[in-house]
Amino acid sequence: MAKVNLLFGIHCHQPSGNFDFVFRKLADKSYLPFLRCLASHPGVKITVHFSGCLLEWLDQNCPEVIGLLQSLSARGQIEILGGGYFEPILASIPESDRYDQIMLLSRYIENKFGIRPRGMWLAERVWDSSVVKSIVESGIEYVLVDDYPFLSIGKSEADLKGYYLTDEENLPLAVFPIDARLRYLTPFQPIGKTIDFLKDLAVREQDACAIVVDDGEKYGGWPGTYEWVYENKWLEDFLSEIEANSSWINCLTMREALDAFPPRGHVYLPTSAYFEMGQWSLPSESAVEFGQAWERMSSDSELARYKKFLRGGIWKNFLIKYPESNRMHKKMFYIHYRLKALPESELASKAKLHLMRAQTNDAYWHGVFGGLYLPHLRHAVYQNLLLAEQMLTEPGTFNYEYVDFDHDGNGEFLIFTPEMSFAIAPAQGGQIIEWSHRNLAYNLANTIARRPEHYHVGSAEKANVAEDVNPSDSVATIHEREGKIDPLLKNKLFYDSYARNTCIDHFISSALSLDDFSKSNFTNYGDFVNNEYSIRNIEKGNPIDLTLVKIGSVHSDVNDEIVQIMLEKNFIFHQSGFDVYYTLRNLSDITIQTRFGVEFNLAMPAGGGVAGRYYIDQDLAADASFNSLAETKAAAHIRLEDDVFGGSVAIQLDTPQTWWRFPLQTVSQSEAGWEMTYQSSMLMPIWDLHMEANAEYSIHIRAIVETGSPAI
Amino acid sequence: MAKVNLLFGIHCHQPSGNFDFVFRKLADKSYLPFLRCLASHPGVKITVHFSGCLLEWLDQNCPEVIGLLQSLSARGQIEILGGGYFEPILASIPESDRYDQIMLLSRYIENKFGIRPRGMWLAERVWDSSVVKSIVESGIEYVLVDDYPFLSIGKSEADLKGYYLTDEENLPLAVFPIDARLRYLTPFQPIGKTIDFLKDLAVREQDACAIVVDDGEKYGGWPGTYEWVYENKWLEDFLSEIEANSSWINCLTMREALDAFPPRGHVYLPTSAYFEMGQWSLPSESAVEFGQAWERMSSDSELARYKKFLRGGIWKNFLIKYPESNRMHKKMFYIHYRLKALPESELASKAKLHLMRAQTNDAYWHGVFGGLYLPHLRHAVYQNLLLAEQMLTEPGTFNYEYVDFDHDGNGEFLIFTPEMSFAIAPAQGGQIIEWSHRNLAYNLANTIARRPEHYHVGSAEKANVAEDVNPSDSVATIHEREGKIDPLLKNKLFYDSYARNTCIDHFISSALSLDDFSKSNFTNYGDFVNNEYSIRNIEKGNPIDLTLVKIGSVHSDVNDEIVQIMLEKNFIFHQSGFDVYYTLRNLSDITIQTRFGVEFNLAMPAGGGVAGRYYIDQDLAADASFNSLAETKAAAHIRLEDDVFGGSVAIQLDTPQTWWRFPLQTVSQSEAGWEMTYQSSMLMPIWDLHMEANAEYSIHIRAIVETGSPAI
Repeated sequence: MAKVNLLFGIHCHQPSGNFDFVFRKLADKSYLPFLRCLASHPGVKITVHFSGCLLEWLDQNCPEVIGLLQSLSARGQIEILGGGYFEPILASIPESDRYDQIMLLSRYIENKFGIRPRGMWLAERVWDSSVVKSIVESGIEYVLVDDYPFLSIGKSEADLKGYYLTDEENLPLAVFPIDARLRYLTPFQPIGKTIDFLKDLAVREQDACAIVVDDGEKYGGWPGTYEWVYENKWLEDFLSEIEANSSWINCLTMREALDAFPPRGHVYLPTSAYFEMGQWSLPSESAVEFGQAWERMSSDSELARYKKFLRGGIWKNFLIKYPESNRMHKKMFYIHYRLKALPESELASKAKLHLMRAQTNDAYWHGVFGGLYLPHLRHAVYQNLLLAEQMLTEPGTFNYEYVDFDHDGNGEFLIFTPEMSFAIAPAQGGQIIEWSHRNLAYNLANTIARRPEHYHVGSAEKANVAEDVNPSDSVATIHEREGKIDPLLKNKLFYDSYARNTCIDHFISSALSLDDFSKSNFTNYGDFVNNEYSIRNIEKGNPIDLTLVKIGSVHSDVNDEIVQIMLEKNFIFHQSGFDVYYTLRNLSDITIQTRFGVEFNLAMPAGGGVAGRYYIDQDLAADASFNSLAETKAAAHIRLEDDVFGGSVAIQLDTPQTWWRFPLQTVSQSEAGWEMTYQSSMLMPIWDLHMEANAEYSIHIRAIVETGSPAI
Repeated sequence: MAKVNLLFGIHCHQPSGNFDFVFRKLADKSYLPFLRCLASHPGVKITVHFSGCLLEWLDQNCPEVIGLLQSLSARGQIEILGGGYFEPILASIPESDRYDQIMLLSRYIENKFGIRPRGMWLAERVWDSSVVKSIVESGIEYVLVDDYPFLSIGKSEADLKGYYLTDEENLPLAVFPIDARLRYLTPFQPIGKTIDFLKDLAVREQDACAIVVDDGEKYGGWPGTYEWVYENKWLEDFLSEIEANSSWINCLTMREALDAFPPRGHVYLPTSAYFEMGQWSLPSESAVEFGQAWERMSSDSELARYKKFLRGGIWKNFLIKYPESNRMHKKMFYIHYRLKALPESELASKAKLHLMRAQTNDAYWHGVFGGLYLPHLRHAVYQNLLLAEQMLTEPGTFNYEYVDFDHDGNGEFLIFTPEMSFAIAPAQGGQIIEWSHRNLAYNLANTIARRPEHYHVGSAEKANVAEDVNPSDSVATIHEREGKIDPLLKNKLFYDSYARNTCIDHFISSALSLDDFSKSNFTNYGDFVNNEYSIRNIEKGNPIDLTLVKIGSVHSDVNDEIVQIMLEKNFIFHQSGFDVYYTLRNLSDITIQTRFGVEFNLAMPAGGGVAGRYYIDQDLAADASFNSLAETKAAAHIRLEDDVFGGSVAIQLDTPQTWWRFPLQTVSQSEAGWEMTYQSSMLMPIWDLHMEANAEYSIHIRAIVETGSPAI
């Protein structure tokens, strides 16, 4: 019988900022049992990748994994791949950081395991021609990508049983295509199917390489897989079967295959990842259509051969789909450039490490894992960016910049006070889009709007090879779990028409209920939200004084008239917070009646967790009912306290008013199913305005962070 | 009525190296009448792009065009776009050359027309994230791209009536999507359809921008368009209609639109060009499938909305589809790096200009124009590369390098003698893949194999909006002309199983006819073609001595046995050519009979033109019958002479043998239909070998270039 080469491996990663119990669970249920099982099958060679942030945690908390990796590596049973240390999407970070990320992990691996990596794992297999240069210059000879881009440019599955060469700027790089069929067979299907696959390949071609490297968490970490892989001995049996068939299954690591075989050819790949990400990165409406196209073409044998030409979005489209991701991404670039302008120093190196840690990909996007929808992952990004920013900022600074920070074509003010960093978007309703406490390394504006997702409407792409799943002898991949709608959460789907920033200026009907407001089920009576404010004045100094102004239309509540209102918004940014002075002038010659609300969205309590407490007014005791809608009447201030944040935020008015509050919660999918996530506390003081012709009305709000004991 | 903004323009380009009569025809039939007509309609503002190489020619040969551009620009009626001076595919050239190409044209335009370009034409609209940095750093604020990539990532047609912002490395760039519907309406359809399109847009949205900039050659240069556009007054009527409707059609140049309107949003685009190139760049079999997918989905109203997710190949796939393009491309990079290693000097600047001229895109690919299939365009690339190479090469050089020149995973020898540059590919049958005479700036190996093209099998993508074409009141776009099979040329479709290099070692049946050989309709009796030769020896010096060796199988002619033959191939590269000494040893213990031929493919007569003459042996007079197959018996040498080349090539044997020759001609499409093109002269001396067991046979071939009067 002809031989077949099996290039098998796992990629393991957990983001900086993930909960310790998640790391622990994965170490116990996945990494340890996998490596122990492998160690007892010395006839099986594989290639493994562990991200730097995961290796760090394991080194501190589970040295047995590190020890197993060392001994398996020492006896040549595993090859350890490099990658970006903190597992960034390489194409999404500054070019010079790409090199630094790769070198950091290569050096770590060389120190720890004695062998410098020759190949690397490309995070999420996001391929872009722009990454080749940094990869090659950092001494890496090969990467692993998906087979999908190869198929889409005309290669057949048979062509992909080996590696290819590509190049950019004339620098050559080898690329190994990962077999999607094997990705869905291992470990989800009975091992016989994988063995049959290999047999079939051996018959068809001498020295073909079957290439499969996929998430190590599939082996015990994903729902249902621990039982399947370890208790039912899928892995044990699989490795035994490979050893028993060593006469025709030849296990090779990637570097061995690279040295043993010539390339299959020369190739140039389009910007791509795996097929599924093509759907996820599309706007949700298009993602639904894309899923339909895939299903329609899968169910029609005539059309099925054209499926390979179907391509969705690219990873960077997540930055457009989710402005909250774009803000983190652009802040990351901003810190990069500030850092780059500095001379080398110990402090700069420390800040650089924080910057690189903030480049971990998970929080910037969303597919089948929670990703961007998980507040603690976004917080880890901001935390590191702010720690770096704090190191780069002169003590006592009062400063500002006016730049198009988020690349929307409009300038934003970046405002720095000794403790805080703010970003204000005049073109976006003059709202506060970042409110960070640098010492506490916490962005209070780190929330996310509720948006439709393609799986909300019950459509989902189908797993590539899921057609023949038999529930009794297999375990569902997480892709098969996708699209299963939780009927309870289905009722919690509300979609926001505006980003959940702070200082959003609403004019609302007096008939509007808090319930409808909380569901974004209302018509704004003004046109101030999301629209452009003019810059009247900015003054540097202590404090920084910024005045924005907009003349807009307001629908009067009583007489059904639309009148012009001039709204002036004067921010005073000081050491520990800000004041905002509103002046509203009725420009019409009629009297109007309206409700004016200033919406705050505060990423507190952090992650909706129990560590947060909620204070309402002096008279009320700690009120932890932050999970429900509430109206408070005649309160002059409200304070939110949160142990995770490490301080409290007090919002104070000159006169007692009515306040609305509700928990902003998103519904998103994760590997375990649908989940509802507390993103932020919506708080809105409301003024009932009766404005005579040409009358003026003034409002003052103070919002401050207290890190000591409560002062109010 | 609401207003609509018309952002109309033309892009004009002809490659360096195109025939003078082509430039002349286009100036007379297209550029001049277009600009004259425009000048008489001062109410119409447009944006124009002329490539640097076209502006150069016009400046020298048709100053009226330059004068018109100057006066139209001076009165603000046109905006002149920048671009890469020599119209390179920006993503395909070295990063530092991108900047230089853009700056060269920007400076030229500023000098000539007094205004520095703020926007640029992106050659073939090939978008790749890697080009943004050079574009922004050279001071360009916006580019024009196709609407297709926008649609494929989920934008609707309605979203595309303005420009977007994108960024890479945090550098912002505006991108204007060109409307494919308008591309097919202007000028091919009656003007009423364009006016209706604009009306429709004006009704739907206030201040929408209708954006169409396409090839200026569509206005008089493409087949049938002169009559349609000028004699039937399409353009005159169109411009008049725009002027007459100035109450609601607002003509703007791109820069005016950029200043007048905010961006429509923020976007990240995948590697892309226009839809059609997605098909062309695929391997031909996949291109056929892609065309079928497109047709199938176009004809089914349910599937039609999924068409936007269909994506084909990317521009760089042409380098894989056509190894001859890859060789030019890699030689271009090779010269770039040699040049980059030199200090600045006048000579280096001159060489740089040749390098940049060799980056003109046309000869590197093939779609609806001849492109790569046109020998004179490929020659222009080699000519400039060789002029640069000659400037970079020390006089009297005898030198070599062993590098993976073409990125196929195998090393090639680059061999330099005082007059010549050779490239030898041991892994590709030990063949000569480049044979350049640097002083004459001519690559004798500049040919191309005959390959299937998707349109050969009668499939072609259909024009996007061609459904409602009425032949009586419109003119066909060149895309509608695609796929029309010329029945005469259909019989000339032969496909090569190997690249048409020089010193290809054939063992053939004695029964094989020249006719079948010329049609690639035969089985090789040996396995030497395309297979790997070992390197036995290389010696630097005068001459350079390279010995390759391969043990291969040969099917004996008489006794139907397969035996092992050791073939040693000793090249001696000297000043003006090379000698090759073959030693063939029968390793078996049986006697065999076979025919051994050494195939030469010489890019002479240049382009199959009349300037070439053909000499066969001393006894024959000039034989210009290079267009037919011929067998010459008992000749010891053959010489090819060519005035375009500027010299002759003599191939000389030690003993008279039989020679075969035939013209290698390709069948490809161009804007005018199918055409057959003389690519090179195949010449093959043949030895009838009767080899006893363990016998050895020696052959000597001398191949030299003579630039004076014939010496043989």
